[in-house]
Amino acid sequence: MDISQKLARRTEFMQASAIREILKVVAQDGMISLAGGIPAPESFPMGIIKQLTNDVLDEFGSAALQYDKTEGFEPLRVSLIPHLTERGVVNVNMDTLTIFSGSQSVLDLVAKVLITPGDTIAIEAPSYLGAISAFNAYEPNYVSVMTDDDGIIPESLEAVLKENDVKLIYLVPTFQNPTGRTLSLERRKRVAELVKQYDVLVLEDDPYSALRYSGTALPPLQQFTPEHVVYSSTFSKILAPGLRIGYCVAPKALARWLVIAKQGNDLHTQSFGQAIAALYLSGGYLTEHLPNIIELYRPRRDAMLATLENCMPEGFRWTHPEGGMFLWVEGPAGFDGDDLYHACIKRNVAFVPGKYFYFDESLGIATMRFNFTMVTEDVIEKAVRTVAETAQQLLA
Amino acid sequence: MDISQKLARRTEFMQASAIREILKVVAQDGMISLAGGIPAPESFPMGIIKQLTNDVLDEFGSAALQYDKTEGFEPLRVSLIPHLTERGVVNVNMDTLTIFSGSQSVLDLVAKVLITPGDTIAIEAPSYLGAISAFNAYEPNYVSVMTDDDGIIPESLEAVLKENDVKLIYLVPTFQNPTGRTLSLERRKRVAELVKQYDVLVLEDDPYSALRYSGTALPPLQQFTPEHVVYSSTFSKILAPGLRIGYCVAPKALARWLVIAKQGNDLHTQSFGQAIAALYLSGGYLTEHLPNIIELYRPRRDAMLATLENCMPEGFRWTHPEGGMFLWVEGPAGFDGDDLYHACIKRNVAFVPGKYFYFDESLGIATMRFNFTMVTEDVIEKAVRTVAETAQQLLA
Repeated sequence: MDISQKLARRTEFMQASAIREILKVVAQDGMISLAGGIPAPESFPMGIIKQLTNDVLDEFGSAALQYDKTEGFEPLRVSLIPHLTERGVVNVNMDTLTIFSGSQSVLDLVAKVLITPGDTIAIEAPSYLGAISAFNAYEPNYVSVMTDDDGIIPESLEAVLKENDVKLIYLVPTFQNPTGRTLSLERRKRVAELVKQYDVLVLEDDPYSALRYSGTALPPLQQFTPEHVVYSSTFSKILAPGLRIGYCVAPKALARWLVIAKQGNDLHTQSFGQAIAALYLSGGYLTEHLPNIIELYRPRRDAMLATLENCMPEGFRWTHPEGGMFLWVEGPAGFDGDDLYHACIKRNVAFVPGKYFYFDESLGIATMRFNFTMVTEDVIEKAVRTVAETAQQLLA
Repeated sequence: MDISQKLARRTEFMQASAIREILKVVAQDGMISLAGGIPAPESFPMGIIKQLTNDVLDEFGSAALQYDKTEGFEPLRVSLIPHLTERGVVNVNMDTLTIFSGSQSVLDLVAKVLITPGDTIAIEAPSYLGAISAFNAYEPNYVSVMTDDDGIIPESLEAVLKENDVKLIYLVPTFQNPTGRTLSLERRKRVAELVKQYDVLVLEDDPYSALRYSGTALPPLQQFTPEHVVYSSTFSKILAPGLRIGYCVAPKALARWLVIAKQGNDLHTQSFGQAIAALYLSGGYLTEHLPNIIELYRPRRDAMLATLENCMPEGFRWTHPEGGMFLWVEGPAGFDGDDLYHACIKRNVAFVPGKYFYFDESLGIATMRFNFTMVTEDVIEKAVRTVAETAQQLLA
């Protein structure tokens, strides 16, 4: 049978992630990788998880292993309400909060219930690729909103909203992947105004805000216009990504549709992992463990910033993220991040060329994404020195 | 914001499952329910699971908690190859076998990569509703294939394939939900011939075949034409449904597309549950525990069959399933299963009216689905007696 003759039209818009292909290349022995986007395994609370797997069976018994409500495991939803309220999310209740199989599944299902082929999604340039890969299956058009060091530029957003019938805006306002940038408070308010004015929905993807190493926490965009925002987050960066526990707070009528769509998608998110996450919150373990993660990552960020400062050739600039997992480097005009990537690979250092994070790759030729959470400070210093030397040679 | 103005076109085809609504009604205190479709919690290997949650962390460490390949946790895939080969599935290898977030997610993703709006899916009448709820999001047309006590009728299938450009056939050939029927060996071979002749894909959903209480195992349909069949199964009925571990064996080119689609859907299935399932297979625990599940359910099936035989009024007939979780009762011409349902509810006994399992409800007015796995033999006897008495009264 020729499967290619049987495929749905939407497969024309779907493809394997280019970055996943890069990650396969850089997984070779001896390679120092600043390419990945995953938490350091030493950030996982292994002892706590070991204890909680036992506690879960003692406390919830077979309920942690049985079919469950599509909306999510009730003790987890109950525990999340005060947690999210403390984070500044508003309108968090049993009608608006739903658990999903990782925040990737939130991205998928929000697009599934909102996007008819040809509808327009506005994305940041650059943006998180996993979102594009979720959205593509629903055959949207994309329009790009320009960004600077304070996140998306409201004037650019307004122009986009004026010129296009935008169905959904996708934003990572805090410690964005790939740039590490954070949307300023003033801009959050302005974006909320625009969103209300144009009556458009925003998907606010917030996987990283708990990982703050300096500066002051900002309220989520959702706080300023909850009826227009789906606030999405995850346990992947504060507990363990392999459990695949994400969630969102959505306007009630939309939350109802997300549950109906999720019922067809996967019935419900696995109960056992939800039960672990419930006890992780309600037992105070997150409060106990989060400082360990922050103390692990902060020196790594600092080491990367210090080495960039000491070593990078003139003409390069980079972001100074207050949290998260990435920073973003931009070379001088005419510089090619892909050339640097290939030259560095030969010296056993990897990162991701920034162009892959743009819908229009030509906008990101000079850019690069560096992850600072996966390797120790001394390895980061060595890797960034190698990148800097190689960049110098390419410029010469 | 008026969310209804923002919804995708496909939401017109999506709705909350009628049966989920029934299950809410029957969850009241004091109700004896033959309505559910879930495993008995006492079938879960609690002691084994408790041990395996510890073993998983000892054996796989942080790999059981980290992001993982979209294709699935490698030790689980390796363990499944001999397990599925023993079950008669062919061409099981690392290019064809993929792990999903429950078999519901297989249903969703197979439709996602194959169905363009307006494509035709052939389903059994009656059929498993969860599949319809997965498929609906991709806006297919449905055609029904007639069934009898030996499963779908090949002549009906051939007529359907002749008259329609069928993209996909959805079948539960063994201990079908809702009927408990099994497609005979002879028909499996004939269906395989037809499928080859008309070059059409089959989704063979096989959640129940391990739960055989009598008779002889049959080879999966996939064995007779592996290039035309996606074979799907799950750990939900032999380990625990709350872990949401399903999988499928698909033709290699289709498996590749399923992985690409799954990457956008949920990145990968949770690693921790996959690691538990891996050890459950490789450590011989399934072999140890499966007879316990069978010994739990067989007397319940037998009690239901015996009570039906003893008590049901003349004119009723029912299936005699050799395994699975359900049997199917059909009343005499003109009988209304929905009337019986409402009358029984008043007497605190619930089941599911069969019409809800038909795309065209008028075909199933006289039918009912009884689950026999959730309550003990004496409760089953009491419940079936009540149903029989109530039916007698309705007929009088």
